[in-house]
Amino acid sequence: MMEPSEPRDTLLIELVENGDRFLPHLSIDCVVFGFHASQLKVLLLKLTNADLYALPGGYIYQEEDTDQAGARILAERTGLTRIYLEQFGVFGRHDRTNNRVHQQIFESFGIPFDPDFWMWKRFVSIGYYALVDYDQVTPTPDLFSDRCDWHDVGTLPPLLFDHARLVEKALETLRLMLDHKLVGFNLLPEMFTMAELQGVYETILNRKFQRTNFQRKMLSLGILERVQKKYGGGSHKAPYLYRFDTGKA
Amino acid sequence: MMEPSEPRDTLLIELVENGDRFLPHLSIDCVVFGFHASQLKVLLLKLTNADLYALPGGYIYQEEDTDQAGARILAERTGLTRIYLEQFGVFGRHDRTNNRVHQQIFESFGIPFDPDFWMWKRFVSIGYYALVDYDQVTPTPDLFSDRCDWHDVGTLPPLLFDHARLVEKALETLRLMLDHKLVGFNLLPEMFTMAELQGVYETILNRKFQRTNFQRKMLSLGILERVQKKYGGGSHKAPYLYRFDTGKA
Repeated sequence: MMEPSEPRDTLLIELVENGDRFLPHLSIDCVVFGFHASQLKVLLLKLTNADLYALPGGYIYQEEDTDQAGARILAERTGLTRIYLEQFGVFGRHDRTNNRVHQQIFESFGIPFDPDFWMWKRFVSIGYYALVDYDQVTPTPDLFSDRCDWHDVGTLPPLLFDHARLVEKALETLRLMLDHKLVGFNLLPEMFTMAELQGVYETILNRKFQRTNFQRKMLSLGILERVQKKYGGGSHKAPYLYRFDTGKA
Repeated sequence: MMEPSEPRDTLLIELVENGDRFLPHLSIDCVVFGFHASQLKVLLLKLTNADLYALPGGYIYQEEDTDQAGARILAERTGLTRIYLEQFGVFGRHDRTNNRVHQQIFESFGIPFDPDFWMWKRFVSIGYYALVDYDQVTPTPDLFSDRCDWHDVGTLPPLLFDHARLVEKALETLRLMLDHKLVGFNLLPEMFTMAELQGVYETILNRKFQRTNFQRKMLSLGILERVQKKYGGGSHKAPYLYRFDTGKA
């Protein structure tokens, strides 16, 4: 039995010696969206010793709901415990996973290759997308990665398995849900200007809106609360701040 | 080893003696929608010796894509091999399944109860919804059911596990997709009148449309092809028939 010396060793022992605590063949992958400098960003892990990036992901404990597992995995990678999280699809091609890179990382930890090891089997993955306030996130690498960083959605590096397809499908779902469930607010701080909200919509939908039309439409939904002006030191030109009124949504 | 005497025995042997050919802990459940007599219908199985109904479902072979498994399961229950089929969600509460009724059915087949049998474990289910032409379906019970019938979505009988929630979520997704991906055509025969198409939209969305507005909107999409009149024996009052023009969609 291995002895843990740091947190990532604890997870390694969990995976290697207590693999039967997880559901076999089933994983979760998360597309975490943030909004920064007028760009839609996605959180990626750089795999150790490889020029390959992966979505934050993990496994489901036998006694854990899938939604709980998604929230736990995201908390580990972002430091956030309250996250807007939605399933967007199942990725279940029988040949979608090829664990060569992960096997090499395990071997670099001194764990000999075992073709029957549960992690090298076929995995069906449940895709979740998350909308987070960029400034609140503390990106944290996992056992198989040496970096965790934001990347522009438009210029992604090479991605593991079918993860590029997962990002694409998550983005399609986000576009569809932006109007339907008004999820865009989750990408902004608690208080925001109308221009910031318009920026989120324009970036995700990749189109421009006319300023007064956009404002009229948003206010007509009756879900924005205008906040007392707090900054600007008395300037009457400071823009209004708004807050999403959850009581009305 | 049991000897098969009819098709359902073959499946029973597969489940009992070759259970390791399926992915453990993972199932598929299908919400099959049909449209008949101005009602939206869903296909349900009546479990043998129980006043309980279930969605058509099944398991995924180790070498099978999840989408292939969904299509195979639906072909077995409906006789249809080309079906409009979409995932709509994963149902993953750790305590969602309770296999008491299925265990009793197994015992009625003379198979003694084994608490470690793979089918009695926790299952995460992938939900698919299907849109079919009602008149083309041959409803066929499975191993655990003695009937397979259409039921009105508005008046469903008692359903197994969380299957009522699956129907609800499938219906929410169908409503959202009706305009977005124009999926409603899949509920109609190849040729249909504008009134029939309007009936599908009105029933699913539970609202009325003004006839000329509905027609103008549908024609403006540029995806309907008007078919040469074929019936009515010369009456110039027979309504036009339309066909979904897949080349333009």
